[in-house]
Amino acid sequence: MKIQTPLILVNFKTYLEATGRRAVSLARTAEKVSRETQVSICVAPQFTDIITVVKNVEIPVFAQHIDPIEPGSYTGYVLADAVKEAGAVGTLINHSERQLKLSEIDTAVRIARRKGLVSIVCANNQSISAAVAALKPDMVAVEPPELIGTGLSVSKAKPDIVTATVRLVKEVNPTVTVLCGAGISFGEDVAAALRLGTEGVLVASSVVKAKNPYRVLRAFAEKAKQTFERER
Amino acid sequence: MKIQTPLILVNFKTYLEATGRRAVSLARTAEKVSRETQVSICVAPQFTDIITVVKNVEIPVFAQHIDPIEPGSYTGYVLADAVKEAGAVGTLINHSERQLKLSEIDTAVRIARRKGLVSIVCANNQSISAAVAALKPDMVAVEPPELIGTGLSVSKAKPDIVTATVRLVKEVNPTVTVLCGAGISFGEDVAAALRLGTEGVLVASSVVKAKNPYRVLRAFAEKAKQTFERER
Amino acid sequence: MKIQTPLILVNFKTYLEATGRRAVSLARTAEKVSRETQVSICVAPQFTDIITVVKNVEIPVFAQHIDPIEPGSYTGYVLADAVKEAGAVGTLINHSERQLKLSEIDTAVRIARRKGLVSIVCANNQSISAAVAALKPDMVAVEPPELIGTGLSVSKAKPDIVTATVRLVKEVNPTVTVLCGAGISFGEDVAAALRLGTEGVLVASSVVKAKNPYRVLRAFAEKAKQTFERER
Amino acid sequence: MKIQTPLILVNFKTYLEATGRRAVSLARTAEKVSRETQVSICVAPQFTDIITVVKNVEIPVFAQHIDPIEPGSYTGYVLADAVKEAGAVGTLINHSERQLKLSEIDTAVRIARRKGLVSIVCANNQSISAAVAALKPDMVAVEPPELIGTGLSVSKAKPDIVTATVRLVKEVNPTVTVLCGAGISFGEDVAAALRLGTEGVLVASSVVKAKNPYRVLRAFAEKAKQTFERER
Repeated sequence: MKIQTPLILVNFKTYLEATGRRAVSLARTAEKVSRETQVSICVAPQFTDIITVVKNVEIPVFAQHIDPIEPGSYTGYVLADAVKEAGAVGTLINHSERQLKLSEIDTAVRIARRKGLVSIVCANNQSISAAVAALKPDMVAVEPPELIGTGLSVSKAKPDIVTATVRLVKEVNPTVTVLCGAGISFGEDVAAALRLGTEGVLVASSVVKAKNPYRVLRAFAEKAKQTFERER
Repeated sequence: MKIQTPLILVNFKTYLEATGRRAVSLARTAEKVSRETQVSICVAPQFTDIITVVKNVEIPVFAQHIDPIEPGSYTGYVLADAVKEAGAVGTLINHSERQLKLSEIDTAVRIARRKGLVSIVCANNQSISAAVAALKPDMVAVEPPELIGTGLSVSKAKPDIVTATVRLVKEVNPTVTVLCGAGISFGEDVAAALRLGTEGVLVASSVVKAKNPYRVLRAFAEKAKQTFERER
Repeated sequence: MKIQTPLILVNFKTYLEATGRRAVSLARTAEKVSRETQVSICVAPQFTDIITVVKNVEIPVFAQHIDPIEPGSYTGYVLADAVKEAGAVGTLINHSERQLKLSEIDTAVRIARRKGLVSIVCANNQSISAAVAALKPDMVAVEPPELIGTGLSVSKAKPDIVTATVRLVKEVNPTVTVLCGAGISFGEDVAAALRLGTEGVLVASSVVKAKNPYRVLRAFAEKAKQTFERER
Repeated sequence: MKIQTPLILVNFKTYLEATGRRAVSLARTAEKVSRETQVSICVAPQFTDIITVVKNVEIPVFAQHIDPIEPGSYTGYVLADAVKEAGAVGTLINHSERQLKLSEIDTAVRIARRKGLVSIVCANNQSISAAVAALKPDMVAVEPPELIGTGLSVSKAKPDIVTATVRLVKEVNPTVTVLCGAGISFGEDVAAALRLGTEGVLVASSVVKAKNPYRVLRAFAEKAKQTFERER
């Protein structure tokens, strides 16, 4: 599956505001904004909600994590085949809240590739981003964990990390799509991220916990569109 | 929720034979046997499959694991609220393939209790069983990991572990239901487990990977019923 | 080895003030106080410092942790045999900063017993204390992690946890020695701990980071002695 | 500290044959071979033994692991400062038996660099080797875990992995020294490793568990010397 860029991925985390029926409702909002703006918006609900979200919207659905395992005796683990059959088109790997050993990232990326799942590997800084690029994922998302949930965006507070990530990742592997995330709260943060050379953003609390998620996401998408067209 | 005993819990693990559509199909088989024999049969599918299995069968559905977390920023984790809203009535905790730190087991049991999820905590041996009983779960399941998947049943190969577990758990906490598992392959293994004082069994590969899961499960259920009636 | 009670165990953690030469110096201070007051004071330096501390003092030396492993291919792990040959008489297990899976605690306690190392298993609250008592360690130390390093002592701030721990542990296993820790900063905190039924305390920052560790430890030891004699 | 190449690093793991007094004895053997052959031989004893080994030999001593922590409240962890003060000149990081999360490897490499410890990061295959090279350690050691302890050497059984590692690591970072390990049992395995472009080897059981460690190590060193001189 090819995901169109610029890309906004909404990570539902384990927020109650995006669990169960509310996951479906938020995914529908994302789909609406995507249709209206023609910007690619993906959602990453919890494992239990993937199948219902997939049935209710046509935008791409991601898992938040897969385990680096093959089918077998792994009670309580998350199997790529299960995520795939539930309808997910891709998965986050190594989110800063769910970090893996390096060899596990390598295995998870290989499994995702083999199963046809788009892999987005998260990294805390530019050197880690360069490291994961060597594992040949589809996308790398740099997210300084100290900014996650702060409302202080990586693209405004730490532009150097974003710029360095884009440069280092492309040096190692020019085919990898670079995203950034952490603290993205305003349309301007999205615009800044794209101007710094990324092709998309990861967002979470600013959308999920917003009084009006539609309005926030719509602002993000419009800024993404404007900026992306101007930059080309 | 009160689960009737004797109880047979079928753990689907991450077997391909019990993933996605095949999870629903296997759950239907379990429901059929449960109806025919009037023995309580529960199923524990993967997270992604819980909601679909719940929609398709009326027997109790368990999660294979929950994380010891509250709603929030826990990308890739398994939230009790999500499992509950998907329709699970309970959860395994600390399966030998998905072991937790002791304080995490304590937290997971408390969360399950608060959310109204039946907690089945797994333990490798009798002293660990006694330890977890002190945390007041609903059920303790002793499963010596060295027997899992072997076809050599705990109730036949290590009856002393089962007997000791029943005794020690009841000493610590007489209200805890004791189950056993690992290697249960024949009706006679189920019978032996109940005669040793347990109120149910955990099964997995012998059912999931059987050529005819219906026949295997039916034999388990019949033996469970006969033995349970005789023992009382 | 039998450790005399009341007992004060000074955990050096990975504080620079108690690393290398400074570990030896602090251990000598502890030995001096122990001699002067006739109260049993033990020290738990870092792994690298055990052997030098043992050579320089005659008070009991503990490891801060052992891994649940036998000799073999475990690069970077802490082997009970190595800790024992270095001269340690015992070890902490499952400190809240170095928690283990439940089955690992069970294995570590068994290994310690077999090697003749005194095992002190740490627990975050009373129900976890009761759980670990079922594994038959020599001592259980209840340390609510939210109080560690606060200067607010468990014996003053949460006396109920200490009392409940003593009661529950003794119910499960009357031969287990109960200690408590977290926030112990004044002689009065030590006295309170003993009055609540414990036989000793774990201390760390209040001694290690004190301007005058001798004075702090001396006050602890004197209060321990007075209280213990009065209580009997 | 600059470690001379070609380099043979003897990992003592947690083998009883290399614990305590026997660690010192084996280190002396390594020193003897190093003197006789003028080949750089380093030893990596357990944490508890570092200080004694350092006092008894003049060859470089490595830790088997450091934790990615700063001084503070980390009971049971391995602090770089402690390892350094004990006299180690470097450390293994991410050995396949003691793997770290990717961000932990990044932090451990940075801490080692700041403390003046030589960092040898282990990797399971060529793409992981390339990934860790991006973190700028001093050395990368490729060790396919499936060959460790088999007697089947990586340089004979999987020469492609070694060649690819050398190439990929140098592309990412030409200043990184490349080592290999796993299954090195004969002098010829060492020679093959150097011919494939590495500058040294990691060895363990073939030396530690040998009837005559001196003879094995001497053969390794001689082959290393011959091959290295011929290759230049």
